[in-house]
Amino acid sequence: MYPDSLKELIESFKFLPGIGEKSAERMAFYILDLDEEKVEYFSDSLKNVKTKIKKCPVCSNITEGDLCSICADDSRNKDLLCVLEDKKNIFLFEKLGSYNGYYHVLDNLIDPLNGINPEDIGLEKLINRIKEGNFKEIIIAVKPSIEGETTSLYIKKILEGMNVKVTRIASGIPIGADMEYIDAITLERALTDRKEIN
Amino acid sequence: MYPDSLKELIESFKFLPGIGEKSAERMAFYILDLDEEKVEYFSDSLKNVKTKIKKCPVCSNITEGDLCSICADDSRNKDLLCVLEDKKNIFLFEKLGSYNGYYHVLDNLIDPLNGINPEDIGLEKLINRIKEGNFKEIIIAVKPSIEGETTSLYIKKILEGMNVKVTRIASGIPIGADMEYIDAITLERALTDRKEIN
Repeated sequence: MYPDSLKELIESFKFLPGIGEKSAERMAFYILDLDEEKVEYFSDSLKNVKTKIKKCPVCSNITEGDLCSICADDSRNKDLLCVLEDKKNIFLFEKLGSYNGYYHVLDNLIDPLNGINPEDIGLEKLINRIKEGNFKEIIIAVKPSIEGETTSLYIKKILEGMNVKVTRIASGIPIGADMEYIDAITLERALTDRKEIN
Repeated sequence: MYPDSLKELIESFKFLPGIGEKSAERMAFYILDLDEEKVEYFSDSLKNVKTKIKKCPVCSNITEGDLCSICADDSRNKDLLCVLEDKKNIFLFEKLGSYNGYYHVLDNLIDPLNGINPEDIGLEKLINRIKEGNFKEIIIAVKPSIEGETTSLYIKKILEGMNVKVTRIASGIPIGADMEYIDAITLERALTDRKEIN
């Protein structure tokens, strides 16, 4: 029904998360009427992202240069290293503006049921970095799932005796959430991790 | 904060209707991890749509060839011509599968308040087509707004004496809608256009 090139564009939009047939059609028709320069900019930016962006060899953040902008920044706090499961999450922390240590992105979380064992998550790179660096605290900031907990405990164990404090970010009730919508495991954790009010 | 090429891709996604900063970021990160061939396909399909798709010289539908697939189809019903405000709407009718006449897409709807007068909506092309063709009925299928009504009435007037029936698609209560949510103008129209039950 549609001309081939339009069909192909609709297919392309459907690659994107959360975009079904209807939204893809709407977007493709929108492109039809969009300025030619804008479409060219869009088209080029897709290719550029794939050709220009690489993994930072130190922390696995994304970068166009040799080192990522964070690893290359000598003014940050050299005491702190935050361990993440996804490069995207670096930008969540950076937007906060309150953390100014360094980051380390794992290849994966440990998930034996899906065949991902401790040796598959890129830990040697992390260990070598800690051995060579002078970090005082490793902050583990992975999601509080079974895989996340397993990974946190494994890292804690493996870093034992390395003279570095290992912490994890707090789990509990999200600020502003209604208590009645909180699942039992989260509530249990919130209770266990209760803090004295000062 | 983001590498330049990622920033540019986020900007590109924000060209799309309904895509704000957050969705654009999510899509851009998704592209980062997508297969290189898929991204290339996406990038190429954007450019192809702009270079390959033209306006059908007869009806203003989109086409990659000389005539659009509908104008080129000699087997359709030559009695019927459906007048639309947007090329997109051709595909809504085609998906129905019950209409098999021809189409004609206007450049615009008449909208004097925004400087769009009867001479700006491409009527000569429509009139010439009706004069040269042998249509028995012109079905006006534009939206039932002030601009749509004005355009319908104007076309009706201009085709007077041309030995062709001019109809418009029905307005009224959408099937399945709750009466209480229907606005007064629609209800008024539904009442006026009531039909005898057979």
